[in-house]
Amino acid sequence: MDAYLQLEKQFKKLASYHHLTAICGWDQATMMPDGGNDARANAMSDLAVLCHETLVAPEVGEWINAIDEHIDTLTDEQKINVREIKRQWAHATVLPSDLVEAKSQAGSKCEHQWRKQRQNNDWEGFATNLKSVVTLSREEAKKRAAHTGLTPYNAMLDLYEPGMTTEKIDALFADLKSWLPALTQQIIEKQKTVALISPEGPFSTEKQANLGQQLMSLLDFDFNHGRLDVSVHPFCGGVPEDVRITTRYDEEDFTSAIMGVIHETGHARYEQGLPKHLSGLPSAEARSMGIHESQSLFFEMQIARSPEFVAHIAKMAAETFERQADPAFSLANMNTLYKRVQPGYIRVDADEVTYPAHIILRYEIERGLIEGTIEVDDIPALWNQKMQEYLGIDTEGNFTNGCMQDIHWTDGSFGYFPSYTLGAMYAAQFMHAMRKDVDVDACIRNLDIKPISAWLEKNIWSKGSTLSTEELVIQATGEPLNPEYFKQHLISRYLNS
Amino acid sequence: MDAYLQLEKQFKKLASYHHLTAICGWDQATMMPDGGNDARANAMSDLAVLCHETLVAPEVGEWINAIDEHIDTLTDEQKINVREIKRQWAHATVLPSDLVEAKSQAGSKCEHQWRKQRQNNDWEGFATNLKSVVTLSREEAKKRAAHTGLTPYNAMLDLYEPGMTTEKIDALFADLKSWLPALTQQIIEKQKTVALISPEGPFSTEKQANLGQQLMSLLDFDFNHGRLDVSVHPFCGGVPEDVRITTRYDEEDFTSAIMGVIHETGHARYEQGLPKHLSGLPSAEARSMGIHESQSLFFEMQIARSPEFVAHIAKMAAETFERQADPAFSLANMNTLYKRVQPGYIRVDADEVTYPAHIILRYEIERGLIEGTIEVDDIPALWNQKMQEYLGIDTEGNFTNGCMQDIHWTDGSFGYFPSYTLGAMYAAQFMHAMRKDVDVDACIRNLDIKPISAWLEKNIWSKGSTLSTEELVIQATGEPLNPEYFKQHLISRYLNS
Ligand SMILES: [Zn+2]
Ligand SMILES: [Zn+2]
Repeated sequence: MDAYLQLEKQFKKLASYHHLTAICGWDQATMMPDGGNDARANAMSDLAVLCHETLVAPEVGEWINAIDEHIDTLTDEQKINVREIKRQWAHATVLPSDLVEAKSQAGSKCEHQWRKQRQNNDWEGFATNLKSVVTLSREEAKKRAAHTGLTPYNAMLDLYEPGMTTEKIDALFADLKSWLPALTQQIIEKQKTVALISPEGPFSTEKQANLGQQLMSLLDFDFNHGRLDVSVHPFCGGVPEDVRITTRYDEEDFTSAIMGVIHETGHARYEQGLPKHLSGLPSAEARSMGIHESQSLFFEMQIARSPEFVAHIAKMAAETFERQADPAFSLANMNTLYKRVQPGYIRVDADEVTYPAHIILRYEIERGLIEGTIEVDDIPALWNQKMQEYLGIDTEGNFTNGCMQDIHWTDGSFGYFPSYTLGAMYAAQFMHAMRKDVDVDACIRNLDIKPISAWLEKNIWSKGSTLSTEELVIQATGEPLNPEYFKQHLISRYLNS
Repeated sequence: MDAYLQLEKQFKKLASYHHLTAICGWDQATMMPDGGNDARANAMSDLAVLCHETLVAPEVGEWINAIDEHIDTLTDEQKINVREIKRQWAHATVLPSDLVEAKSQAGSKCEHQWRKQRQNNDWEGFATNLKSVVTLSREEAKKRAAHTGLTPYNAMLDLYEPGMTTEKIDALFADLKSWLPALTQQIIEKQKTVALISPEGPFSTEKQANLGQQLMSLLDFDFNHGRLDVSVHPFCGGVPEDVRITTRYDEEDFTSAIMGVIHETGHARYEQGLPKHLSGLPSAEARSMGIHESQSLFFEMQIARSPEFVAHIAKMAAETFERQADPAFSLANMNTLYKRVQPGYIRVDADEVTYPAHIILRYEIERGLIEGTIEVDDIPALWNQKMQEYLGIDTEGNFTNGCMQDIHWTDGSFGYFPSYTLGAMYAAQFMHAMRKDVDVDACIRNLDIKPISAWLEKNIWSKGSTLSTEELVIQATGEPLNPEYFKQHLISRYLNS
């Protein structure tokens, strides 16, 4: 068998192992009784080792080298596959195994102790562990940089958002910073005069789940290839043929669980729409974290928080909870609720207007941490200073709801945070482009989601990883990422309506 | 590292792979949407190949050989482990891989087509596929026989019930055949005069599940290490640290789902009670299929169908379904229901009195098939003749509910069937021995299951595979398997009460 077919076979085997990892990971978060955790963690760890060994096996390197000699005999689709195979292989092989091991252990320890330390506002204890993680992550970034020719932080970015660089992000975020704080203030001023009635619970978990499933159906989630369950931290997992999304329910507030379900439905439809004829190959995988988030935010921010869709939510929620006469369920009030802008401590609770400030702050700090211009001990003061500057919020001494709120740095996922705001900007740009072909408002008003899905499937989902992110965005929208569409989206939704 | 530790490491890795296989298999039967099946089957098949490769890797053979040279340096516990490792390794390596592959393919085809063929009563179509399976299974049995020095059928028996032979089974079954047909007739005669009121549904699935969980709790199922779900074919899966049992619900009849839950609870408690300090090693595994079934039948037949326990079921069911005034839920009627003896076509629906006839029939036929004294074409006539002789039932032309009802032969699991009746006999013998130390009836009457569990844990569960089946039975009961206890159990329950 020739080298290319050997590689395909090896990566399909790897995809099978990832399949089982994904399902067992989902089970661990949704179904597994507590007492099963040690044995499960052990089994998953053995499978992770196996996945790594499968990817870095000496013959994989040999096949990759052998292919270079007859690359011209491959089809375009095969060449793309080789490009992505090389990318994954390089990411896996560039680090010495003792560094991988040391980082994995430091990360596990930091994350494990963080759960308690965060509850106790124990910055000192956390900082000690985080320093080890940062030291090892700096070493990782340096090794990746040496191999790719990128700067250390760009080499980390490349893991989550291939092709993205600080140069591009700096320009994008400088743009945001030039207008977002003033816009935020204007919106808050405008909203001051609008009263909000909070829907009062209890809202039973069963009814919330039922409403969530109704909404998933409206949004063409394919229940023959996926399901909705409950976990402490909502996520989208499983495999493209069987996508598992989760949410959590608060019986006092149905509004956030419902919007969480829609967000994860966006992630899920991307996975369900990935190219089936390439199934199991690296080119069939989702393009990047930023593009993934663009799809969840497209469903949540672009579709579901539009007044046209909120009208459906209001009606369906009133029916499901039998609150047709409750003024909290009126269309106007539901719109007020789902458009409320309010600076806050917590990133994951932020609205789409204040969310980018949380990301810019994290980006500026994590980049400095990797580049060596910021030390762990500097974080709390910088956090407080930037929260004051960007959102007018004082976090001094409040580590729990300040610099200890996220899990990303504990295991060394430096370079991940920008994906969230890149996703929001991609989503707005996709919507702008889609509107040239599709009467989106009418589609949403009439609950005719097919044309919207068809556009996303054609331009994003079916591309998998066959294009670079930039090629994908240019082919879909006619230009590279442009923050102007995100700006126009915010102005149009929050100021001009 | 010395050879023994290498083997331990390899088998613990294998146990991790089996863990993920078990959880994903459970998911496939309980949670997975239909559309996920092809991808799952493919991923599971890749993991099955990996498990096989891990077991037959050349270094495993080398370590096993190396150990023989310094076996005396091992502890007793390690020696036992080596014995079980050798057993698993020999079972896996003795067959040439083309035979394994051919049998696997013939079995898959036969099983796949059987589902439709059974519905269509299509014996001709089924026989064609079964002939391939039988031919390959004969070859398998011959190879295993050559390697072990056993007869071909004994070599197959050894896969499911190590140490069991046709000589022993012939004696046990000859004993059964000498008294069971007459006893069955006597019981049927006796029951003719007792009227039975069938509880009338509907009984909601939720309430049945709730009742099942109450009963599992009474029987000390550890919900921190397991759970109950729904599947088309009930089973006990998962891993000892996280045992997954399933049942199916019929809204017209709660009685069989409930007893099914108790049966699987017996399997589960055995798994949950396996020796934890040996976890992941072959010596920690369940001893045999017969001993496994003895535990499910201990819980179902010895405990749960006793009048003392049926009293609890009657009361709890009446409360759960709010039928306190319904005469169908009276203690007397529930006892009549759970003791009803009735010859029938279907093995899995049979009561404990008529069940052995189904097994003896299958044993006699499958043994002949493997030994070459019976051909596939002979099966229908033999089936009909034996059903007439043992149970007075005519199955001529009725293949669906006759010789095509089971799945065991379709994939070549010849040698499995005797386990069911061996299990019933072991269970009766364990109960007889337990009664010397434990006032079982009082325990059940007072729902004080701990002393019963403690006896089973001490004598059966905690032994794992450290003893041979015969050693296990002798240590627990003072003698080898003796069918007299099963006979006395049936007489006492069905004639003298
Ligand atoms: Zn997301
Ligand atoms: Zn059973």
